[in-house]
Amino acid sequence: MPELRKDPITGRWVIISTDRAKRPSDFVRESVDIKGERFCPFCTGNESKTPPEVLQFGRNGGGANSPGWQVRVVPNKFPALGIEGNLDREGFGVFDRMNGIGAHEVIIETPDHRTTLAMMNEKQVERVLCAFRDRMLELKNDKRFRYMLVFKNHGEAAGASLEHPHSQLIALPIVPKRVREEVDSALRYYREKERCIFCDVIHQELESAARVVDETDFFVTLAPYAPRFPFETWILPRHHASAFENQQGAVYAALGKVLRDNLARLDAVLDRPPYNLMFHTSPVGEEINDHYHWHVEIIPKLTKVAGFEWGTGFYICPTPPEESARFMREAHVLPAASR
Amino acid sequence: MPELRKDPITGRWVIISTDRAKRPSDFVRESVDIKGERFCPFCTGNESKTPPEVLQFGRNGGGANSPGWQVRVVPNKFPALGIEGNLDREGFGVFDRMNGIGAHEVIIETPDHRTTLAMMNEKQVERVLCAFRDRMLELKNDKRFRYMLVFKNHGEAAGASLEHPHSQLIALPIVPKRVREEVDSALRYYREKERCIFCDVIHQELESAARVVDETDFFVTLAPYAPRFPFETWILPRHHASAFENQQGAVYAALGKVLRDNLARLDAVLDRPPYNLMFHTSPVGEEINDHYHWHVEIIPKLTKVAGFEWGTGFYICPTPPEESARFMREAHVLPAASR
Repeated sequence: MPELRKDPITGRWVIISTDRAKRPSDFVRESVDIKGERFCPFCTGNESKTPPEVLQFGRNGGGANSPGWQVRVVPNKFPALGIEGNLDREGFGVFDRMNGIGAHEVIIETPDHRTTLAMMNEKQVERVLCAFRDRMLELKNDKRFRYMLVFKNHGEAAGASLEHPHSQLIALPIVPKRVREEVDSALRYYREKERCIFCDVIHQELESAARVVDETDFFVTLAPYAPRFPFETWILPRHHASAFENQQGAVYAALGKVLRDNLARLDAVLDRPPYNLMFHTSPVGEEINDHYHWHVEIIPKLTKVAGFEWGTGFYICPTPPEESARFMREAHVLPAASR
Repeated sequence: MPELRKDPITGRWVIISTDRAKRPSDFVRESVDIKGERFCPFCTGNESKTPPEVLQFGRNGGGANSPGWQVRVVPNKFPALGIEGNLDREGFGVFDRMNGIGAHEVIIETPDHRTTLAMMNEKQVERVLCAFRDRMLELKNDKRFRYMLVFKNHGEAAGASLEHPHSQLIALPIVPKRVREEVDSALRYYREKERCIFCDVIHQELESAARVVDETDFFVTLAPYAPRFPFETWILPRHHASAFENQQGAVYAALGKVLRDNLARLDAVLDRPPYNLMFHTSPVGEEINDHYHWHVEIIPKLTKVAGFEWGTGFYICPTPPEESARFMREAHVLPAASR
């Protein structure tokens, strides 16, 4: 008998297949292989092929946009939103539109074309996380922006158009509806219970341990109770914190290790799958609150989203999270390459 | 400058690329080719390889589960939900679950492995639509079901696991959150204006004509103002009607032609793309109302949903709907094969 489960935060129901649960080997493999065959604008030495950098870490001397960097941030050459202009809003009868104002930046995570986040040492992952933070803090000076999403598409099947390890940051002039729903749902819970719902989830998950993948002083990694996708995992700060970008330095160092380890587990269990990684943080101007709990969501791309999901917003997950947590926990993770 | 547009029904914002809008030839082609290489349980003569049929049209004499049918409906051999049992609901701390009760049926649209909906004659498409209606009406006798979705995954990239033309029906014990939101949003609009929001959209779209693909006495086919996907199209009844399954016979005949024509247009413009097709109707027990307007949504699978979309619920559509409507309108559609 399959099971219907409800995500306590979003209220989303999912169908969990229990009888014929899929194991890692049951998914069609589409391992991410970095081929390095084409010219790469993100590789060291090709700095002139990107728009001028807005941030870099690691260069000791040398001019801007020259080699020597460890992490480099540039505006997206083909941005989804434009940085220039006013936020004009208009209505046409029943329809509403506004100018597509926003920022769209690329965080080049390493000068080396072949070193993925899962292969980096912790220090380098920490540098990448600090670049996310610095750019978010900087972009908040622009009063037009209401929400910022940092995300990563790893592998072509997950939407990456360039191989070289990179993440993206998009600053939006509105708070997306799904984000608003998540934050508002957490706020309603807080008003009723005077507790953060994420904190309650973490507390319950650590007690039962069935869906816990990893646990450190600062973070807990979970397979969520009602995942949309097989092997979906979330990394949450163990203690309440509402905004990713407002943390103490030690938190980014700790997350560097946890994130790297978790991606290495995914690589080991699912043979280097394509994945999407998203940082969920509080909307701009609401960064300090007691109800929302920033976290990272990682969804490997193993299944196809089809008519049922598009028609209902209801997901069918063929692997129970208790199973995926067990596989991830038991994964043999190699120590990070020293660098 | 890209444009942000808001869907008036769901409140979902999308980013429409206007500067470097993608034309049909800009998408990576993954045409659906029916190969017919493997054994097919849906082909005529193989009726014993499926669970026993629950409906068929076209057989003149001969026993159940024998050849001679034109449309055949069978339970899904690997259902996402189970039909037997009680709807037990339980809570575990912050989590809620219930038994995965539901119906999952397959509508085999033709005895011929190679005839897609776009290639069928109108009469055959009408038979398929009537099979959807009959099964929905029958399943409503089961008081455990609150929502029914008919959908189709065409082509492997859109999630189809078998080539033979077929659709699916899933009956759910709850109203999915996204459906509830859509219906409730339409209800709020109705309470304020005493008009159906879909009727208002249709009225405005027919006046401007920019996004109209096709228009008949009974139906209008549109590229929606704020599409999630390039070449997304909706087919709506021209006059208010709240439930697909409660229509007069002439409506299914008319929809047979419009749906076939529209799928043939898609095939012509995008060279037989994979697609998902969903029937949106009112929840069970709310079929007769003034605020919700049943319709069909068709989304060709041309782009990848990636981290930005998963993180925000916000879509980036690289083709303005005015462009896709124009391509679809101007498509040269062959007359249906007579059969």
